Amino acid sequence: MSDDTPTPIVSPSDEERHDDAYELRPDTAARIVHAVDNGDREQLVAEMEPLHPADIADLLEQINSFDRRRVIELYGDEFDGDILSELDFSIREEVLGYLSPEVLAEAVRELDSDDVVDLVEDLEDDQQNAILEVLEDSDRMAVRQSLTYPEYSAGRLMQREVVMAPEHWNVGEAIDFMRNQTDLPEQFYHIILVDPKLHPVGNVTLGKLMSSRREVMLSSLVEETFHVIPVTQYEGDVAYAFNQYHLISAPVVDENERLVGVITIDDAMAVLDEEHEEDILRLAGVGEGGLNDNFIDTTRQRFPWLAVNLVTAILASLVIAQFEATISQFVALAVLMPIVASMGGNAGTQSLTVSVRSIATRDLTGANVWRVIRREALVGLVNGLIFAVVMGVIGVIWFGSPALGYVIAAAMVINLVVAGLAGTGIPVLLEKAGVDPALASGAFVTTVTDVVGFLAFLGLAAAFLL
Amino acid sequence: MSDDTPTPIVSPSDEERHDDAYELRPDTAARIVHAVDNGDREQLVAEMEPLHPADIADLLEQINSFDRRRVIELYGDEFDGDILSELDFSIREEVLGYLSPEVLAEAVRELDSDDVVDLVEDLEDDQQNAILEVLEDSDRMAVRQSLTYPEYSAGRLMQREVVMAPEHWNVGEAIDFMRNQTDLPEQFYHIILVDPKLHPVGNVTLGKLMSSRREVMLSSLVEETFHVIPVTQYEGDVAYAFNQYHLISAPVVDENERLVGVITIDDAMAVLDEEHEEDILRLAGVGEGGLNDNFIDTTRQRFPWLAVNLVTAILASLVIAQFEATISQFVALAVLMPIVASMGGNAGTQSLTVSVRSIATRDLTGANVWRVIRREALVGLVNGLIFAVVMGVIGVIWFGSPALGYVIAAAMVINLVVAGLAGTGIPVLLEKAGVDPALASGAFVTTVTDVVGFLAFLGLAAAFLL
Repeated sequence: MSDDTPTPIVSPSDEERHDDAYELRPDTAARIVHAVDNGDREQLVAEMEPLHPADIADLLEQINSFDRRRVIELYGDEFDGDILSELDFSIREEVLGYLSPEVLAEAVRELDSDDVVDLVEDLEDDQQNAILEVLEDSDRMAVRQSLTYPEYSAGRLMQREVVMAPEHWNVGEAIDFMRNQTDLPEQFYHIILVDPKLHPVGNVTLGKLMSSRREVMLSSLVEETFHVIPVTQYEGDVAYAFNQYHLISAPVVDENERLVGVITIDDAMAVLDEEHEEDILRLAGVGEGGLNDNFIDTTRQRFPWLAVNLVTAILASLVIAQFEATISQFVALAVLMPIVASMGGNAGTQSLTVSVRSIATRDLTGANVWRVIRREALVGLVNGLIFAVVMGVIGVIWFGSPALGYVIAAAMVINLVVAGLAGTGIPVLLEKAGVDPALASGAFVTTVTDVVGFLAFLGLAAAFLL
Repeated sequence: MSDDTPTPIVSPSDEERHDDAYELRPDTAARIVHAVDNGDREQLVAEMEPLHPADIADLLEQINSFDRRRVIELYGDEFDGDILSELDFSIREEVLGYLSPEVLAEAVRELDSDDVVDLVEDLEDDQQNAILEVLEDSDRMAVRQSLTYPEYSAGRLMQREVVMAPEHWNVGEAIDFMRNQTDLPEQFYHIILVDPKLHPVGNVTLGKLMSSRREVMLSSLVEETFHVIPVTQYEGDVAYAFNQYHLISAPVVDENERLVGVITIDDAMAVLDEEHEEDILRLAGVGEGGLNDNFIDTTRQRFPWLAVNLVTAILASLVIAQFEATISQFVALAVLMPIVASMGGNAGTQSLTVSVRSIATRDLTGANVWRVIRREALVGLVNGLIFAVVMGVIGVIWFGSPALGYVIAAAMVINLVVAGLAGTGIPVLLEKAGVDPALASGAFVTTVTDVVGFLAFLGLAAAFLL
């Protein structure tokens, strides 16, 4: 917009602050592209300066590739390392290519070691090495060490800088120790008490420390809830533990139970967010897809589940094909049969979504699985009966055939009960088999409801209508 | 299990620790029910004692109503207030009914005021009053005050206890002040600096405070990122801001920008989790449903979206009905038509899920909406062409009709392009209209893909096959 208007385009008072949670205003992108069009570095910097790195990253994701390159090149050495951390992976690789070696080196050196790990872990070897080269020796070693832990493990997520104290210290000793430290981490919330073998034994919050007298023993101030995380634990399970036990930070231990790092809740929250994103996208058969992937990657991501769906749809068609003779005698069946299948598919999706979520939150367990399956079948039965009456009446009115009404009603009840059973049973079985139920349940459940829907409706029709 | 075996049933070493993130073991429920069967209060307490209140709440949710009542009655005055906070709403009301007035009073008095708010806000007036009555006057007033803020607002979420300091203080003054406070909050991470009008002007972390010399000015230690939350802000937006800006705690202000409370990241994380749950359930048309709702509530929750689906399915059937004559001449159409509709529905769901998520994360904006719509249409075109070839060949082989192959191929391409357009366009339009796109997009998109799928396939067949 407004390539022909002079600056300033919009004064801040003109902006409508419709969403206080988000500091990036809708017209900021336009003003920044305008500054770049004019080659006006001063205005660009003035626009970018007040923005949080997360907002700059969002802005770079929202403009197109051509503008992105121009913004980054004009912005030059103002480019902050945190912007890289915040960028979506698909855009990050592109942006790395636009940065001059000097700007990149400067940007990366500003980052904490856990952020560098996050930045480089998905990169190709040569891009990874180019970034690691610019680090100081000690940082490079820390990053390389972290990269030896499995992907998506607590080891990749943790900070290596920990603030710890021997369990026999008192408050005064801890405070004096911290006063004399020059390299305390940017963010920390607890002092971790350790025994002589470096096993973590408790957490003391800084607040407790500050409000206690110097002679109080640290061991008398430990938090009631204390959760230790194995370094190889899957990051999704780490996020779960933080959310379940309201942890703020938790020590990470190696296979000998020795303290090797600490994970803080902000990292756990980011993982929780990604895990949810993954679940929701997997349930929809989208795989890894993001908004910023190009169209070739997107096409490739979407293809497999459409292919699976094609196979299941053909399966359903094979069922219909068995009843060609019946349909040709009574075309109303072709008109009504998608209704039965569609209602079953919807009811199945409802059940399966509740089940998949409940498995993810550890709420669906051996202790209640039969109760839940029974409930879902009952819900299917009751809703099935209601819609059976509705569709039966519609069948009679529309096609003037009471028999057709009975058939569609019966098929509806059968399919909704099956939907409830399949919607709960399939995710539970997949989970037991070690398959992510979010990933595969949808295809199985709709296959079941399509096949049963067509089979029940056309089968009953063949038996009772002709 | 094992009603006839003597205690101890299972020694801890026999347990398989298959999931270190979750401390509730699968057989704990069985052991607890066993203790209750024997009326063995000592064993019950021994089993429950090491469990976190969140795990006890999960356990109470997983056993049936009969056992739940017996566990709570036998557990008696050991019952902890935090268990109530952790319980799912549907179970919480039931559990409140099982607690004796004395146990309830004791349990509620232990809670922080924000937890009491969370506990009572959804209760009926008389249950609410019964709980508020047992509180001390000052706590009751604090809770009543919080309840005056809108539901799901920052005001309901915040703690009212804040640790603040005048902006002109130095580190020594702040530390001395805290030493002399007797009622500091259980958990706090920052000191909030305020000006004389009580407007928050910055955050100082406790870590910075501890590692700085006494004469350093607090104002020189403030955090770079500082985000102030209006008391009426929607809690989902609060959670978004915490995640976007990596906040640990943030001050909450009233309409005069005066400090009234503080929100910490653990509460924001819980809200983020709930928001995701809501999105995922809404996308599946489940509404408010949870795993612990009884079957009548569940039936009622599932019904409306099934009813909407019935209407859209009937709409699609009306399209089919226009082609009854065509179908009766060429029954293969009835066999193949669900495939076109089903592929469109799946592709549409893929697009709409990515769009709904991107709207929720503020990644899909005016700046990139046209680019995303174009991409989705292109993805639909390319995948449509691939599946068109596949289905065309299948159509020819199965039914020996090249014309049928062309028709299904063309319908497939049309429906997948439309699916991409509708899957992105509909959520964007709903969002603009102020409707939650997670709630309503699914029904609209599948209506479009069903109608277009049947119309394209049967319409082309009528035109070219007969």
